Order: sequence, then structure tokens, then C-alpha cells
Amino acid sequence: MAFLLKLVGKLMRRLSTQDQNFKQVFADLLAFETVSDPELLKTVDQIIADVRQHGDSHVLHLTQQFDRHPAHQFSDLELSQQQLKAAFDGLETDVREALQLAAERIREFHQAQKQDGWQYVDALGNTLGQKVTPLDRVGIYVPGGLASYPSSVLMNAIPAQVAGVLEIIMVVPAPGGELNPLVLAAAHLAGVHRVFTIGGAQAVAALAYGTKTIPAVDKITGPGNRFVAAAKRAVFGQVGIDMIAGPSEILVYAEGDNNAEWLAMDVLSQAEHDTVAQAIFISPDPQLLDDVATAIEQHLAALPKAEIARESIANRGALVLVKDRQEAIDLINQVAPEHLELCLDEAEQMAQSIRHAGAIFMGRHTPEAIGDYCAGPNHVLPTSGTARFSSPLGVYDFQKRSSLIMCSAEGVKSLAKAADLLAQKEDLDAHARSARYRY
Amino acid sequence: MAFLLKLVGKLMRRLSTQDQNFKQVFADLLAFETVSDPELLKTVDQIIADVRQHGDSHVLHLTQQFDRHPAHQFSDLELSQQQLKAAFDGLETDVREALQLAAERIREFHQAQKQDGWQYVDALGNTLGQKVTPLDRVGIYVPGGLASYPSSVLMNAIPAQVAGVLEIIMVVPAPGGELNPLVLAAAHLAGVHRVFTIGGAQAVAALAYGTKTIPAVDKITGPGNRFVAAAKRAVFGQVGIDMIAGPSEILVYAEGDNNAEWLAMDVLSQAEHDTVAQAIFISPDPQLLDDVATAIEQHLAALPKAEIARESIANRGALVLVKDRQEAIDLINQVAPEHLELCLDEAEQMAQSIRHAGAIFMGRHTPEAIGDYCAGPNHVLPTSGTARFSSPLGVYDFQKRSSLIMCSAEGVKSLAKAADLLAQKEDLDAHARSARYRY
Repeated sequence: MAFLLKLVGKLMRRLSTQDQNFKQVFADLLAFETVSDPELLKTVDQIIADVRQHGDSHVLHLTQQFDRHPAHQFSDLELSQQQLKAAFDGLETDVREALQLAAERIREFHQAQKQDGWQYVDALGNTLGQKVTPLDRVGIYVPGGLASYPSSVLMNAIPAQVAGVLEIIMVVPAPGGELNPLVLAAAHLAGVHRVFTIGGAQAVAALAYGTKTIPAVDKITGPGNRFVAAAKRAVFGQVGIDMIAGPSEILVYAEGDNNAEWLAMDVLSQAEHDTVAQAIFISPDPQLLDDVATAIEQHLAALPKAEIARESIANRGALVLVKDRQEAIDLINQVAPEHLELCLDEAEQMAQSIRHAGAIFMGRHTPEAIGDYCAGPNHVLPTSGTARFSSPLGVYDFQKRSSLIMCSAEGVKSLAKAADLLAQKEDLDAHARSARYRY
Repeated sequence: MAFLLKLVGKLMRRLSTQDQNFKQVFADLLAFETVSDPELLKTVDQIIADVRQHGDSHVLHLTQQFDRHPAHQFSDLELSQQQLKAAFDGLETDVREALQLAAERIREFHQAQKQDGWQYVDALGNTLGQKVTPLDRVGIYVPGGLASYPSSVLMNAIPAQVAGVLEIIMVVPAPGGELNPLVLAAAHLAGVHRVFTIGGAQAVAALAYGTKTIPAVDKITGPGNRFVAAAKRAVFGQVGIDMIAGPSEILVYAEGDNNAEWLAMDVLSQAEHDTVAQAIFISPDPQLLDDVATAIEQHLAALPKAEIARESIANRGALVLVKDRQEAIDLINQVAPEHLELCLDEAEQMAQSIRHAGAIFMGRHTPEAIGDYCAGPNHVLPTSGTARFSSPLGVYDFQKRSSLIMCSAEGVKSLAKAADLLAQKEDLDAHARSARYRY
């Protein structure tokens, strides 16, 4: 056991805020920069240009080439609503019920996010307001192969559906023509209107610019590989995009009475995603840090994805000893973690001091994995510190606003006078004259 | 006069939805694609890399070089709060009052946009919610020289201030060391915390990554030239950005009793901005189209920026005859204009059918110029059809959300069971086990 412990100590770095070089070491640990690869960008730009020029035929060609898809014509790449429903009906009962529970809870939570317009009449008698409208048409990218998650279908499509989006189009690559029936079942459950079995930069290009068969959408959401991420960045402006997702992260803070085995598994639930995923455990309790380190090693021995998880925690994981809770709060706000677990009695109180986090899981009975599937809130969350300025995917991503202004003949006068003057100061004479006519 | 009219007909293209090739001509008119210039991108990437490496000294160097700024050391590039206040105090009374009126009205409107958090307890006894937090620190880019508009300072800084942003940093280039005192006065009025007289890609890089003197911000908003736009796109992800703005646009729809001179000046108030600005006038009334065309030509004869406006309406303007109001609604939703004026008796009713527009100005006493300065709503609006998926700049751009989840020991059980099952189906064993511990 002593030998194992020593290995653990080496596997997952152990830091203390009292270490002389802590600030630098911790900053280095958090640093993660996606290298922009000029070759990749060139390839993606070319794919987008070709899809814009040749449409369906080029998308079909690339799908045959990259995905080894057996389709002969473009229409072979569209799935029917009947196929989606058949996938749903074919699920084992317990899986279908779990998926339904998840969909219901996600829908309930996202209903609360829906925004309505408003207006008011000012003291001058002018009406001002904000109109809220759903997007007409959105595209949802669902990765194929290993990372083809039905939960992602629900998390992307349900907010769009709740927002009132008129048409939801899903793309999901089908390598070798094979599809995960759970993904199709989730599309059925989430009210997806059309599904195309395409992927990569060609799918993003087709959604952004439209082809003969695929209508151009207004926004593209959902995760993908680096070709997909580069293509989304390239079409940003032509369409809206959600975000460019980085590797998944968890930060677990625990103090007081806790089950180290539970905490260790919560840490590993992020580490198993990806060798560059980041799992950080913070506590003021050195004994708990030891116990969690031991439990992590024990769990790893029995985990199917142990190899990935081990590399993740060796590369980017850390067990951090803090002096007190306030020090932990400061570190958390520095990290702005995608997922944050606060495992202590005063979790709600501590959460009030957290300024930056994608999702905050409070108490000892709220593992992050619940949030991935069925708690209700979205599992598409800002990564790599972007919680400093961005939000979980939500209904608000599928709604947009228009300002409303209606002046009365009397109410406009004092405004027109001020606008006239300010426009003159900005040397915009037509603006000034246009205002002047009204007073 | 007949000769003038004929010229007008040639100056601003005249379309009818009954024209055989209308759809194509109208689509071509709307098409506006910013060409991405590889040389520009390379230059901007290099500037960003140099600023990241050399910080203050490189920003100073480029500011001396590009802006011919007489600064000797970096500290010469920061303005004090006293300088801002002095600029404000030095304004002529009527201008100061106009600026104050604008600031008050913008503040009042944006207060209504502020979002609060919420939470609820579900039927199982679990607490779910959404926490709303302002951004810590934002950077506001204000163009220098000719396009240095005090109104833009108010429109960017006040929403940030209303959101509760802790620190607002403004950058504004000062070519030759010269500054518009109105811009500084507006910064004083809008509660800007620090002002640096720098611009270009170097200012964007300094805000995004921080230097010794300039703290790194979380989001950058505000318009700029193509170097600024390219730099904002490049740092997107490191920080948030508002949008990449295209040329300004107006679409005026009028029917019934209208003053052609007013309408013509409203059209010109966009056209005077930029030779690639777009002004479109739509009506079912051929006589009104004639009258507006005539009035435009008459106004142009007396307009200081006639040359710009003339090129704009010749290049990208149009007078469009529609059969009826419904046809106009369809065209408007196709255009998704930045600014939309609805000059008819039933403006409010018609606005309900508008799905896509940045701001909707209703009635005959609501010229777009009022919205640029002091109506209250923001003048930073989605251009180039991006109103299909994006919103005016608002308080929501300076707030972000975190999901809150707190399960009870009982309430988690059914959720943990479902998560366990779904995680197994996604081959995420640590997720499944982490959930399983809780039931």
C-alpha cells in the first residue's frame, strides 16, 4: 500500500498554496492553448469553398471518402422521421424510460430560461421595448463514432425546441454507414425535424451556406473534432455559433465529512473523457487529499478507460491543499471551471462567492455525472476559463432580440433636439436634419 | 426637373417585385461579403504575437509608428479620471445637457434588460437554478479620428456599467496625440474606469492578453477598422467579443400619408455613413417612390457628405415597389435589416410580423437618428443579416450565467439510476459509477 501511495503521489501532482512557486505552477497547469494549425485551416477553407460551389455532390463525395459511407446518392444521407421513431420504439424499456426522464427534466429546466419581450411608455409618451423572437432554423452537430452521445442530442435540440425554433436540422456522421440507435431515438424525443448523416467541415459548410437539399441555417451548435471546430470558427458571422469547446474540466472542492471514494470517482468521471481533460481536487484537509489520492488509484485499477484517465490526471490533474475556504474560492474564480462540485455543509453559501463557473454542483449528493444526463440544466458548458464571459448553452442561444421604438409627435421633440445637436458634433449632417424635421 | 428625375432614376436603382428577375437582383443587392485578406490576417497575427511577447513596449512602439503619437513612455498613453472630468466640465452647456439626456435614457432602457438569477425546487426535492454574474472586466474599443463618436462610448459602456462590470477599460487611438473631448466627456459620464489612447490590433491584443500596465479583460466590444475586426476574430475564445460589424443599413417601409422629404432624409442618414452602407426604401405606392427619389436628389445637393451618400445609394441602395404589405414583410424578413423604419398607421401591428431586425422604429415621428443618440435602446446592432441570429448590444452581453444543482439524498436516487444507465450506454464507466454511489 505504501508503494501504491507513492505512485499516486507521482501520478497526480500534489500542490499546496504554501509552496513557494505555487502561483506559477498553478498558472502553468491551467494553461491550455489550442494551436492553430495553418494546414488544417487551409484544408477546412478549401472544403467550405468546394461545398459552396458544388453543394450536394461535393458533400456526398467527401462523406463517401472520409466516412466510408456506402451512400450512392445524396438522398441516401437523409434519415426519415419513421427511422427516428423506429429507433426510439426499439429501445429497451429501461433505457427508453431513462431517456424520457432526461428529456422531461431538461425541458422543464429550460422552460424557465425562456425570455419574453417587454415594453414601457416613458415620461414623454414614447414607447420603448424589446421583442424576443426564436431563430428560424438551426443546425445541430452531433459527433459520430465513439463520441456519439444521445445526451448531447437532447442538450442541443431541447433548448432550441423550447425557444420555438421553426426547424431543427441535425447532422451526425455515420462512419461506414453505422449509426448509434440511441442518438436517433434522442433526435425523435427532442423534436429534431431533419437528420443528415454527414459530418466534418463539409457538414458545417452545408449548414452555413445551404445546398440544394440542405437548407441554410441561422446558427450551428454542438461539439466536434478539430475540423468541425475550425469550420465553425470560419463560418462565424455567416451564421451564429455556440462556442469552440475545449477539453472537459472538473474542479471538486471538499471539506468536512466526505466519502473519499465518491469524490475520487467524481474526479475520474472527467478524466475518463480525454487525455487532456482536467480534474482538480481542492481541500483544506491534508488527510482527505491523501484519501482521495488513494481512492483514485484504487478506482483506476478497475476502470475500463483507466488508460485515458491516468494520462489525464498525470498531465493536467492536481490535488491542491489550501489554507482555508476563502483561498479555495479565489482559486476557483481564477480557474472558472466548466464543472464545479462543492462538497461541504455550507455549499449554497459558498456558491454565492463563486463568480465564474459553468455549472455548480452543491452538496455531497450531486455528482457531476447527474448533470451530464438528467438533472435538467445543460451539459454544454463553457470550458478553458471561458466561464469568465460565457454561459451554458440555453434557450437564450436560440432566441434573439429586436429593439422597439415608437415616438409620439410630442414625445419626440426633446429627443430630436438632442439628437440634432449630437449628430452635428459627430459631423453627421443627414442624421441631424432627419432629427430636426421632427421638432 | 425632368432631367433631374431621370438622373435619380439612374442613381438609385428602382425595382419592383413584379420584375421578372426580381429575386435574383434583390439577392445580389443584399450580398456583401467581407473578403478575408491573408496579408491582413498575417499582419494582425504578428502584431498579436509581438504584443504577447513584448507587452507595453511593443504597444508603445506601434502607437508611435501607426498613430504618430508623441508619447515617450507607456504611462503617457493613459488618461486620468481628472482629464475625463475636465473634458466633461469643458463642454458647452447645451452639448453637455444633450449628452446627459442621452446617458440617462440609455441607462433607463438598459436597466430593464438586467437579468436576475432564479431557482426552484423540483418534485423530488432537488434545487435547480441559474446564477447571473456580471463580467469582471471588459474592454471597450472606440475608433479614433473621423469615426470617434461619443455616442458609441455611451452605447458600449453604459450597458456594462448597468450589468455591474467591476472594471471598464476603454481604448481609443489618438492620431497625432489628438483626442475628441466629447469622447472623453462621454467616458466620464458612462463610468469608464481607465482610458488608454491606443488602437488597432495592438490595442485588441493588449486587452485580450494583458500587458504589465493594461490588465487582461474578459470581453472586448466596440467597432473598429478591418485590423481591429480581424484582431477581435483572432482573440475570440481567449476573450468574448460582441460581433464583427459590417456596413450600416436601413430599410424604410412607408405607406399612406407620408412626408417624402422626411423619408428621404432618413434614407440618407444611413447612406452618409459609408460608401458601402445600404439604404432600401420600400412602398406599395409608386407615387411615394417617385417623391422620395426626387427628395433624395434635392437633399443631396445640400448635404456635406453628399459624395459618400451618393456612392452608397448608387452602389447598394434601392427603391422597391411591392404589391402589398405582406410582400414587404417577406422582404424585410429576408433582409433582416439593422435598422427598420415602419412609417404607416398600423406600424405596431406590422412589427408583430417582423421576425428579424436589429431595431424597429415605428410611426412617422421615430427617425432612426433618434435611436443613434438618445431614444434609449442601443445603437450597436446586428448588420449584414445577422439579426437572423443575434441581438443589439445589451446588458446581457456583460452578464453570464452559471447553472446551480443541489440534489437531496433522497431526490438524487431516481436521477442517479437514470444517469447510471445512460452513462453505461455511452461507455462512460466512471460517470456511471459516480452516479451509482448516490443511490
